[in-house]
Amino acid sequence: MRGAIIHGTRDVRFEERAEPVIVEPTDAVIRTVAACVCGSDLWRYRGISQVQRPTPIGHEYVGVVEQVGDAVTTVKPGDFVVGGFLHSDNTCAVCRKGMQANCLHGGGFDGCQAEKIRIPNADGTLLATPGEPDADLIPSLLSLSDVMCTGWHAAVSAGVSPGSSVVVVGDGAVGLSGVLAAAQLGATTIIAMSRHEPRQIVAKEFGATHIVAERGEEGLAQVLDLTEGIGADAVLECVGTEEARAQSVQLVRPGGIIGLVGVPHGDLPTDTLFWGNKGIRGGIAPVRAYLPHLLDLVWKREIDPGKVFDLTLPLSEVAEAYRAMDERRAIKVLLQN
Amino acid sequence: MRGAIIHGTRDVRFEERAEPVIVEPTDAVIRTVAACVCGSDLWRYRGISQVQRPTPIGHEYVGVVEQVGDAVTTVKPGDFVVGGFLHSDNTCAVCRKGMQANCLHGGGFDGCQAEKIRIPNADGTLLATPGEPDADLIPSLLSLSDVMCTGWHAAVSAGVSPGSSVVVVGDGAVGLSGVLAAAQLGATTIIAMSRHEPRQIVAKEFGATHIVAERGEEGLAQVLDLTEGIGADAVLECVGTEEARAQSVQLVRPGGIIGLVGVPHGDLPTDTLFWGNKGIRGGIAPVRAYLPHLLDLVWKREIDPGKVFDLTLPLSEVAEAYRAMDERRAIKVLLQN
Repeated sequence: MRGAIIHGTRDVRFEERAEPVIVEPTDAVIRTVAACVCGSDLWRYRGISQVQRPTPIGHEYVGVVEQVGDAVTTVKPGDFVVGGFLHSDNTCAVCRKGMQANCLHGGGFDGCQAEKIRIPNADGTLLATPGEPDADLIPSLLSLSDVMCTGWHAAVSAGVSPGSSVVVVGDGAVGLSGVLAAAQLGATTIIAMSRHEPRQIVAKEFGATHIVAERGEEGLAQVLDLTEGIGADAVLECVGTEEARAQSVQLVRPGGIIGLVGVPHGDLPTDTLFWGNKGIRGGIAPVRAYLPHLLDLVWKREIDPGKVFDLTLPLSEVAEAYRAMDERRAIKVLLQN
Repeated sequence: MRGAIIHGTRDVRFEERAEPVIVEPTDAVIRTVAACVCGSDLWRYRGISQVQRPTPIGHEYVGVVEQVGDAVTTVKPGDFVVGGFLHSDNTCAVCRKGMQANCLHGGGFDGCQAEKIRIPNADGTLLATPGEPDADLIPSLLSLSDVMCTGWHAAVSAGVSPGSSVVVVGDGAVGLSGVLAAAQLGATTIIAMSRHEPRQIVAKEFGATHIVAERGEEGLAQVLDLTEGIGADAVLECVGTEEARAQSVQLVRPGGIIGLVGVPHGDLPTDTLFWGNKGIRGGIAPVRAYLPHLLDLVWKREIDPGKVFDLTLPLSEVAEAYRAMDERRAIKVLLQN
C-alpha cells in the first residue's frame, strides 16, 4: 500500500510502504476513507522541527475496519470508524479521568496519510458511526479526529460556559473549531482574531460574534472595548508561538483562563500570569473523551465542523496538500482515498 | 502612634510614625486589635527581596473602626472589622468577577503592623463582624485577612470539589489553611507534605488524611501510591520556590490543576505542563470575595483557622515575631495591640 513519507523540509512523498497487519490482539487495521494535513505537521514540513530520517506522517483519519485482533470487541470489519490522533486504552486511571491523550498505555500512529492504517488499542481509540455515513458528512467526521476535538479541548480547558466571553487566537482549522466549540458551550461573546477573509467567514458561520483583524496593542484595545475593559473570561490559544501566547496573556481577564492547544513553541510568562491571577490549562486533546458527544452532534447535523476543509485532493496528491497549507492557500486539505 | 518599619535585612523596628488620618472620603482609620507577620514579609526580612529605604511593613489586621470618610456607608466607628491584605472598591468590572486582588482601583497598605491603619476603599475592603467577637475568635478572624483566604484561593483555583484528591505543598500557615480549605470543599484525599511535627499536627486537625514527610522522588512515589499511580486532581502550591513549583508539576495528574499562591520565586516549565495536560491557576487571593462566607464559618465556629498562630506577642515586640518566624520557631505569630 502507499502512504505519505516526509524526507525533510518541504519534501513529502507518496510512496510504497509495508501493508499494515495485526500485531497485537487489540489492534485493528482500517482502510482509510479520508485523511488530512494538520497544522502541526507543518512544523516538520517547514523545517522548524527536524526530520531525522524518512518518516511516515499524518495522524488524522476516518476509515472502514478491515481486520481486528482477537481481543477487539467494540468495532468489527465493515464498520465506519472515527478515531483520535493518539491511541488510548480508555481504561487506565488517566483515561478514566478523561485525559486519554495522556493514556498510560497509549501513543502515536505510524503515519495516517496512507491507504491503510494500523490502529493499536482499537477499542479504546475508535468509535463506529451508527451506520454508513452520507458522503457529505465525511469532512465533519474527519474533523473529529483532531481539529474539532482540539478546539473543543481549548474551550473546555478554558472553562467556557453559558454567558462566557471568549477570544480565539489563531484562525487555522483548530481556532475555527474553537469558535464552534465556544458557541456550543454557550459563550455569548466570541471574538475571532483573524486577518483572512475566508477564515473570517467560517468563523462567523461557526458563531463568532466579533472579528478582530488587528494584532498587538491595537488588537488588545479592540478586545478590551468588547470586554468591559478587562479582557475575556476565556482565551483559546490555538497557535503555539511565543507571540500568540504573549498576546493571549494580555487578552484574558484576571481570574480568567487561557485554554492552550497550540503545540508550544515559546514559553509563558508565569510571573505575569500569577500577578494577574490568570490561569492556563490544556495540552493535547483527549479526543476519545469528546468523540461520543461530538459524533452525536455531527450525526444529527447540529454542527458542521467539516467546513474547515476548503480543498479536497486525492490522497496521492498529499505533497500538493502540504504546499497548499504551507502557502496558506487552504485552511485545511481533505485527502480522499 | 507606633508601627513596624523595616530598615534592611533582619532589621525591623517598632517606631513612632505619623498618625493615620482620613485622606479620601472613602477611607476609614482603624485601631488595630491584632496584626501578624506573613511568610511573604520574610522575603524582605531575609534580604531575598531588597529594601531600598526604611518602609512601614505588614498587611494583615483586624481592628475597630475609629473614623470614616464621608462616603463610607457599610462600616462605622465602633465596628469590629476584618479586611484583606489589599484594598479594593468591590464594584469595578474586575471585582464583579470576584477578583478583588486585581481591583482596577485597589492597592496595598502603608504598613499594618501598627497601632492604627488607614484603610482606603473602606466599603469595598472591610467587613464588620455581626457583633463584638469573643477574644478566642480573634486569631481566626485575623487569619481571614490573608492566610486563610489565600489557602482558600489555592483550593478554589485548583478546582477542588467533593471527592477530589489534593496535595498541599508547603506547611506554613498558608499551606495549612489550604488543607482546611480542601476539607471544607469536600476533598476526600488530602495529602499534606510536611516534615515538621507541630505542623503535621495542625494539618491533621485541619483535615489532612495523609502526611508525606519526604520530598523529591521519594515524596513523589508516596503521593503516586495514594493516587492510583497518576498524581492528584489538585495540588496547592503554597511556597513559591522553584523547587516547590517543580515538585507540584510532578504531583498533579494529567488534567489536574496546580493552585498557585506562593509568591513566585521561580519559573514554571510551561512545555511540561502542556504535554502533561496540567493546568495552573491562582495568584494573589481576592480576600474580599471569600470574606463573607469564611467569616460566617468562623463566627459559627465551624472552622478554626486561627490554629495557625502558635505564638502571641505584644505588637511592640514585632522584631521578635520576625525572628521567631525566620528561625521557624513559630508557624505564625499574632501581634496584640
